[in-house]
Amino acid sequence: MTTTFELLLVGFGHVAQRFVTLLDEQRTPLARDHGIAVRVVGIVTRRHGRAFAARGLDAGALARRAERGEPIGRASGAAAAAALIPEVARRHPAARQRRLVVVETTTLDIARGQPAIDHVRAALTSGAHVITANKGPAAFAYRALAQTARRAGRRFLFEGAVMDGIPIFNLVRETLPAVQILGFRGVVNSTTNYVLTAMETGQTFDEALAEMQGAGIAEADASLDVDGWDAAAKTAALANVLLGARLTPQTVERQGIGASTGRRATAARAAGRRLKLVARAGRERSGVSARVALEELPDDDLLAGLEGQQNAIVFHTDLLGEIAIVQRGGGLTQTAYALLSDLITIGRDVSGGPPARRGRA
Amino acid sequence: MTTTFELLLVGFGHVAQRFVTLLDEQRTPLARDHGIAVRVVGIVTRRHGRAFAARGLDAGALARRAERGEPIGRASGAAAAAALIPEVARRHPAARQRRLVVVETTTLDIARGQPAIDHVRAALTSGAHVITANKGPAAFAYRALAQTARRAGRRFLFEGAVMDGIPIFNLVRETLPAVQILGFRGVVNSTTNYVLTAMETGQTFDEALAEMQGAGIAEADASLDVDGWDAAAKTAALANVLLGARLTPQTVERQGIGASTGRRATAARAAGRRLKLVARAGRERSGVSARVALEELPDDDLLAGLEGQQNAIVFHTDLLGEIAIVQRGGGLTQTAYALLSDLITIGRDVSGGPPARRGRA
Repeated sequence: MTTTFELLLVGFGHVAQRFVTLLDEQRTPLARDHGIAVRVVGIVTRRHGRAFAARGLDAGALARRAERGEPIGRASGAAAAAALIPEVARRHPAARQRRLVVVETTTLDIARGQPAIDHVRAALTSGAHVITANKGPAAFAYRALAQTARRAGRRFLFEGAVMDGIPIFNLVRETLPAVQILGFRGVVNSTTNYVLTAMETGQTFDEALAEMQGAGIAEADASLDVDGWDAAAKTAALANVLLGARLTPQTVERQGIGASTGRRATAARAAGRRLKLVARAGRERSGVSARVALEELPDDDLLAGLEGQQNAIVFHTDLLGEIAIVQRGGGLTQTAYALLSDLITIGRDVSGGPPARRGRA
Repeated sequence: MTTTFELLLVGFGHVAQRFVTLLDEQRTPLARDHGIAVRVVGIVTRRHGRAFAARGLDAGALARRAERGEPIGRASGAAAAAALIPEVARRHPAARQRRLVVVETTTLDIARGQPAIDHVRAALTSGAHVITANKGPAAFAYRALAQTARRAGRRFLFEGAVMDGIPIFNLVRETLPAVQILGFRGVVNSTTNYVLTAMETGQTFDEALAEMQGAGIAEADASLDVDGWDAAAKTAALANVLLGARLTPQTVERQGIGASTGRRATAARAAGRRLKLVARAGRERSGVSARVALEELPDDDLLAGLEGQQNAIVFHTDLLGEIAIVQRGGGLTQTAYALLSDLITIGRDVSGGPPARRGRA
């Protein structure tokens, strides 16, 4: 039996565009292995207009248009997406039937986590599930939004928020059901790790950073990466979800990297150690401590071996000791995949059955 | 709502004994977070007798007795477990109600995968789910047993068979739903990795191996580890399940380690490389290729950095590139936990609902 999910895309940048093409590519396995069909019934953007069609938009064509910088519909006008979401939900029976999904991928204001938080709240209270690649909602308001989701009987999922396609939250939720996460440490920001690695071999800070910006990996506002804000937001999101913390990026102890860090990196390397920007959090008696800081790691530490854009998180658990998961390269497809995996999670809920993957018992 | 699962333990060695105490330790979270209660209704051993009680045995007390080497019930006599399982299932309404679970942890004959395969088949055809820590069934007969399970409408799970508590099969099944695994490579045998690491620093093969045997990590028959049989069985199990192969340990190309490997290991290390016993498999046009072989890895390879008893698998995927999962120390508790996580997977099926983990949206 196939369930058709109706998607309202809020934000339509590179990630959402890749998500749309990925949905097309995966149409057959989605239906066959997961009983999921999708119809994009609305797209809301800040600058390129908006488009709605209850019977479904040609999202692929609109993605190509958006990529060329052309508007996808009439101008957005003054109405913000947070006000539009309930309107759309009211018109769609899919919301009542738990088949409406808001896909939130707007540009994030790291200082406040907005407008993503408002979008998530508006969607959940309107009867839509939410999947988002934004770290803001989990980093700033996880507890409140999780409660809103529970009360609404809808899902609030954000697998792509922290580590692109690496299944962090799914890993803990689905595969470590009886395990307590006591803490974690990780390298979670690609730009700073790339710059640190490059400086070890003599590149300057500015050169290495420019390379990451040129490749579209670094944030447009470089300070979000190099001052540790992105890592702090991810740390807050992870700690809030996995350790039950009530952090925001601002309450995570934070350190960044700069031109002068190069000397420390080369000195560490010469001494057989590696300088890494490490995110860590752990349960303590007084609550959850969390920080992002430069650490000199021994060469045989798993995090020390991460080159360039590799990311990893090491979980410290009660029953299993340490488990690490490593991503050897992230990007648009990985983040778009994370959204897709969230959609499949919702599909499993709605169909109520066990995962039906072909060829697996 | 709580579902009571009735367990029939086939094999009652260290793993099963730890599983029993872990069930006791986790009784409250199992009921509260997963709606699962358990009752051990039978224990069948090869040498220490057997015990049954429809209302439940005091499995903890019997585990202490077995640990002291005392029989747990009347002598087993001639009847093999494979014949007993259907008898027990017939008497228990739990089998018809999908609440009977056979927990298979007998000693494995690596040459044939028995008696585990017979136990799994007997259980499934009698209406019981199966969870096992044995790699034999997946390494020798995955396809047939998976089909038997599907026809019977029962689960055949073996999370602990390959990497103790690392959630390998769960990871792929639950968190990579739309991802195709193209291949994998990994370090999957603790004993050989420990011995290789020790030899790099001048220990002899015999010393290092004796240490692992003393610690109860190495198999009693050392050739299962050092000749690569254990790694080949794990490779076959992984390839059969994740790549749809039809391998047995015998059809995996296989290499082991010996006293003379020490020289290669120290030479590699001196050249800035590491010698590792690597298990790998991949899809090819002609089918799935699989091998266990000594490989000299560059120092910055994730597998090169695994010291002592650390294990890891790097998955090569279509959508996500490479993802690695690393276990920094395995053991009895980890394997027992894997059985527990399999039980929770079955609990989710039977209750038909989404995972109900407290505090998560």
